[in-house]
Amino acid sequence: MSEISTALEKCGALRFGEFTLASGARSGYYIDIKKASTNPEVLKLIARLMADAIRADPPDRIAGVVLGSVPLAAALSMATDIPYVMVRKEKKDHGTGKLVEGDLVAGERVLVVEDVITTAGSCIKAIETLRAEGAEVVEVLSVIDRESGGRENLDAVGVRLRSLAKGSDLTKGRV
Amino acid sequence: MSEISTALEKCGALRFGEFTLASGARSGYYIDIKKASTNPEVLKLIARLMADAIRADPPDRIAGVVLGSVPLAAALSMATDIPYVMVRKEKKDHGTGKLVEGDLVAGERVLVVEDVITTAGSCIKAIETLRAEGAEVVEVLSVIDRESGGRENLDAVGVRLRSLAKGSDLTKGRV
Repeated sequence: MSEISTALEKCGALRFGEFTLASGARSGYYIDIKKASTNPEVLKLIARLMADAIRADPPDRIAGVVLGSVPLAAALSMATDIPYVMVRKEKKDHGTGKLVEGDLVAGERVLVVEDVITTAGSCIKAIETLRAEGAEVVEVLSVIDRESGGRENLDAVGVRLRSLAKGSDLTKGRV
Repeated sequence: MSEISTALEKCGALRFGEFTLASGARSGYYIDIKKASTNPEVLKLIARLMADAIRADPPDRIAGVVLGSVPLAAALSMATDIPYVMVRKEKKDHGTGKLVEGDLVAGERVLVVEDVITTAGSCIKAIETLRAEGAEVVEVLSVIDRESGGRENLDAVGVRLRSLAKGSDLTKGRV
C-alpha cells in the first residue's frame, strides 16, 4: 500500500468490498473523498504529495473545481505559495458569483487539481471555462484516477492527467 | 492599520473610496474577500490569526459555509488539526450532494468560520443546518464584521460573533 492509499483507508475515505456505482458499474472499492479532504492530516499529506509532483515545473496558478477540489487547491496553494482560483460548474442563478473566483491572468499556465477523476466530465468543463478566460491549462493532477475513461477524455482535449493513485493501485492485492 | 487590514489592502481585497453596495447603502470601503482567500500568504495569515483566537477554547469541529468560507475552514483546520465540514446553502438539484459534507457527530461543539459577515443571513441558515444535524454551534469567527446587523442577528439565535477586523477598524483614519 502506498502512503496515500493507507491514509485514505485509515480516514474512512477508501473502503473495499463489492460496490455498485451510480453508473451501474461494479467496483471493488468505494471512495468518499470528502472524508479525506475534510481531515487535516490527510489534506496536508495530499498537499505535500501534490507539491512534490509539481516542484520540477510549477504552474503560475492552481485551479480547483467547486466544491470537492477547492480544499485541495487551497492546501496546495499554501504548500507551494502559488495562488489559486476556484472554478464553478455553473453560474449561480442570482448574486454576483462568477465562474472563476480569484484572479486569473490571460496566458498563465494553470494546473487543475481534482479529487477523483472518473470520466473527467466536470473537469473538462472547468478546462473550457479556464481556456475561455485565456489560461493555458498545462495538466490535471488528481488524488485518484479511477481509470474509467478520464485519461483518454482529457487526452482528447489536449491535457495530460497525473494522479497520486490509480484505482488499480488501490486494490492491488486487496480484491 | 492592523496586520490583517494591511494584508487585505496589499492583496487588493480591501479598497477605500466611495462605494454603493448591492443593498443601495453607501460604504467608505469595498471588500473582495476572495482576493484574500485565494492568496496563499493572506490565507495563511487568516488561518494563523483564527488559530490564535480559538486556542484558549478549541471546538470539536470547524464549519465553513460554501463557497467563500471553505478555503478558510480548510486552512484553519490544517493550522489547528481540528477537522472541518463544508455547509451548503441549498441542496443540489441532482447528484449526491449533502447539505453538510464531511463527518459531523451529534453533540459536537462547532465553530463556524465566515469570510465577511454583513447581516449574517446565510450564516444563520448554516447554523440551522448544523443544529438540525445535532451540532452545538459555539461561535462564529469571521474575517470581517461589516457591522451591518450581523452581530445582533446572530445574538438573536444565541450565537456570539467574533471577527479579526470590524468595518470601523478598517476605515479608521482612512475615510
